[in-house]
Amino acid sequence: MSATKYIKIDGKFPMHRGGYLESPSIAYETWGTDDNGKNAILIFTGLSPSAHASSSPEDSTSGWWEDMIGSGLPLDTDRYFIICVNSLGSCFGSSGPASINPETNRQYKLDFPVLSLEDVAKGGYEVIKALGLKKVHTTIGCSMGGMSALSFCVQFPEVSERLISISSSARALPFSIAIRSLQREMIRRDNKWSNGNYDPKDPPIEGPRLARKLGMITYRSAEEWEARFARERNTLEYKDGDQFYGDFAVESYLQSQAERFTGQFDANCYLYLSRASDLFDFNENGGSLAKACAKLKLKSSLIIGVKSDFLFPIHQQEELSSHLAKVVKDSHFVALDCIKGHDSFLVEMDAFRPVMNDFLSNE
Amino acid sequence: MSATKYIKIDGKFPMHRGGYLESPSIAYETWGTDDNGKNAILIFTGLSPSAHASSSPEDSTSGWWEDMIGSGLPLDTDRYFIICVNSLGSCFGSSGPASINPETNRQYKLDFPVLSLEDVAKGGYEVIKALGLKKVHTTIGCSMGGMSALSFCVQFPEVSERLISISSSARALPFSIAIRSLQREMIRRDNKWSNGNYDPKDPPIEGPRLARKLGMITYRSAEEWEARFARERNTLEYKDGDQFYGDFAVESYLQSQAERFTGQFDANCYLYLSRASDLFDFNENGGSLAKACAKLKLKSSLIIGVKSDFLFPIHQQEELSSHLAKVVKDSHFVALDCIKGHDSFLVEMDAFRPVMNDFLSNE
Repeated sequence: MSATKYIKIDGKFPMHRGGYLESPSIAYETWGTDDNGKNAILIFTGLSPSAHASSSPEDSTSGWWEDMIGSGLPLDTDRYFIICVNSLGSCFGSSGPASINPETNRQYKLDFPVLSLEDVAKGGYEVIKALGLKKVHTTIGCSMGGMSALSFCVQFPEVSERLISISSSARALPFSIAIRSLQREMIRRDNKWSNGNYDPKDPPIEGPRLARKLGMITYRSAEEWEARFARERNTLEYKDGDQFYGDFAVESYLQSQAERFTGQFDANCYLYLSRASDLFDFNENGGSLAKACAKLKLKSSLIIGVKSDFLFPIHQQEELSSHLAKVVKDSHFVALDCIKGHDSFLVEMDAFRPVMNDFLSNE
Repeated sequence: MSATKYIKIDGKFPMHRGGYLESPSIAYETWGTDDNGKNAILIFTGLSPSAHASSSPEDSTSGWWEDMIGSGLPLDTDRYFIICVNSLGSCFGSSGPASINPETNRQYKLDFPVLSLEDVAKGGYEVIKALGLKKVHTTIGCSMGGMSALSFCVQFPEVSERLISISSSARALPFSIAIRSLQREMIRRDNKWSNGNYDPKDPPIEGPRLARKLGMITYRSAEEWEARFARERNTLEYKDGDQFYGDFAVESYLQSQAERFTGQFDANCYLYLSRASDLFDFNENGGSLAKACAKLKLKSSLIIGVKSDFLFPIHQQEELSSHLAKVVKDSHFVALDCIKGHDSFLVEMDAFRPVMNDFLSNE
């Protein structure tokens, strides 16, 4: 059974880079109980997760942040009212390119307007409003979600008192843009993508699988793989033409990781969200990182980064934090030594939990 | 006009991992004059270059190491007799999958036996023999060529007195294997590849182009691109379906780099050389890096690495050098601060030339 809830936004929802959506939906899940608007934690996700961040009585399946959210955990459901939103443009309940356009009764596909993380942030705000909340105790964003969270805090500066940004940045580096551009190209070059007009029952698989493999390469670290796989070999019988794949255990790992993903995530939604990650630039709020940070009205902030992350490298997070330190009374920066790269916040919970606990227990 | 010369090896050339080639050819170029077998420098290239490392009276076009080889340059043509070989398995004159198999009168394609860098090294040795040389003053290898050079020095320990390994390693890390495996998959998933049986006049283009883009991402560094492109934008008019590509200058750069490469390099040759790079493991010479190094009989060695290289990371080069230091009387390790990543040895000549000069002028 699903624990996903939905709001429907009345009327036209104007998009940051032009165009609008007619009465879009935003999917979300909640854990814990609202204490008169004083204890809400709002979570923005990375590119691919749904709003199902943790299990609950309504949905007992594990969520993507199962070991962070719950009774006695840093995001303590006995203390906080936790809300996780599915990003606008995604395919897990919120309106996106795979949704039906109510004006045409067909899937949007590439008629979906350009998506910006500013729109994702506004989608989160609409959920807060619909829940009757005027304030948010803490806004949290992981990876792409950290950029959505920054946008939320600058668009609605009176709403969130605290910000936690995890393995994210104020804007993407050209290296990260190049990676994502190539992932999008792998999808677009899959014949089945058909300029976005694929049959949802027969979607592109090969292109998204290649893109996911490149994703996995950038989500982990060379150091982790050296420790985990080194040069461990597979013993394979090669068929004609396939001798160029699979000598090494790391290749099988990538394959199984990619297979778990493909078919799960709509290709057009991926393209929109990936481009939105490239386009986002927090500095546009005033023209520089200093000016953008000066527009925030946060009581406290926590920037967490991982030294082995090369998709959202630590120096970007240090830079963001150093600017926050000038305008936020109580600002913190933590650089973790985890070796699992960008994905560490999903898998190195023993490293992340104490940092989250320290910050939240002082509030 | 071409300055490329060829040797033809008589009879069956047995391959390291089984099978043989019938009377294969090795292409090479030379610069300078042989001084009774005392001044030969043998160069093994990276995966994609030809033997045309520098211009000469016979071929005035610039070579891939134009600013390293010549009168007054570190590889001084007034002093040394310089030989650059095109790797066996490549497509610039040496026998490879795109060559005609004399036993069938058809292109080898995937009938080419498994290629190993041990075979590439033996190809170099055959050239030395054919030139009447018993000794080599210095063997140099860049990138993949550094592994071929190590193999040359361990297979023919009496031949080379010195080794210079540049931006290479003793064996690939799983991270680098993952990158190359994905590049090979991009090529194999191109319908035009047709299990290797493409018409040479209508070869796969899209897959190799994607693979080259991933190559460029790993040949340079995030730091260089931040300085060079930052978030510089293109101004494009989007057609339907192409709005997911080209917002940023870094994307156009990748595209133009990839276009310069595709069509130049045979796809099957690329697959064979790429897999050979993954399979090579210098440690197989005895079972460990220490034992492999102990088999060498070098007078001196120089390992040069670049700190921003993440395809052949500096810690691997430091490790190789630390083992060489135990068995080579005069061993040197230089870690350069260049920001252009793996490709630095091709473009940061002002950093590389003094290091090469220092080493060679002391010899």
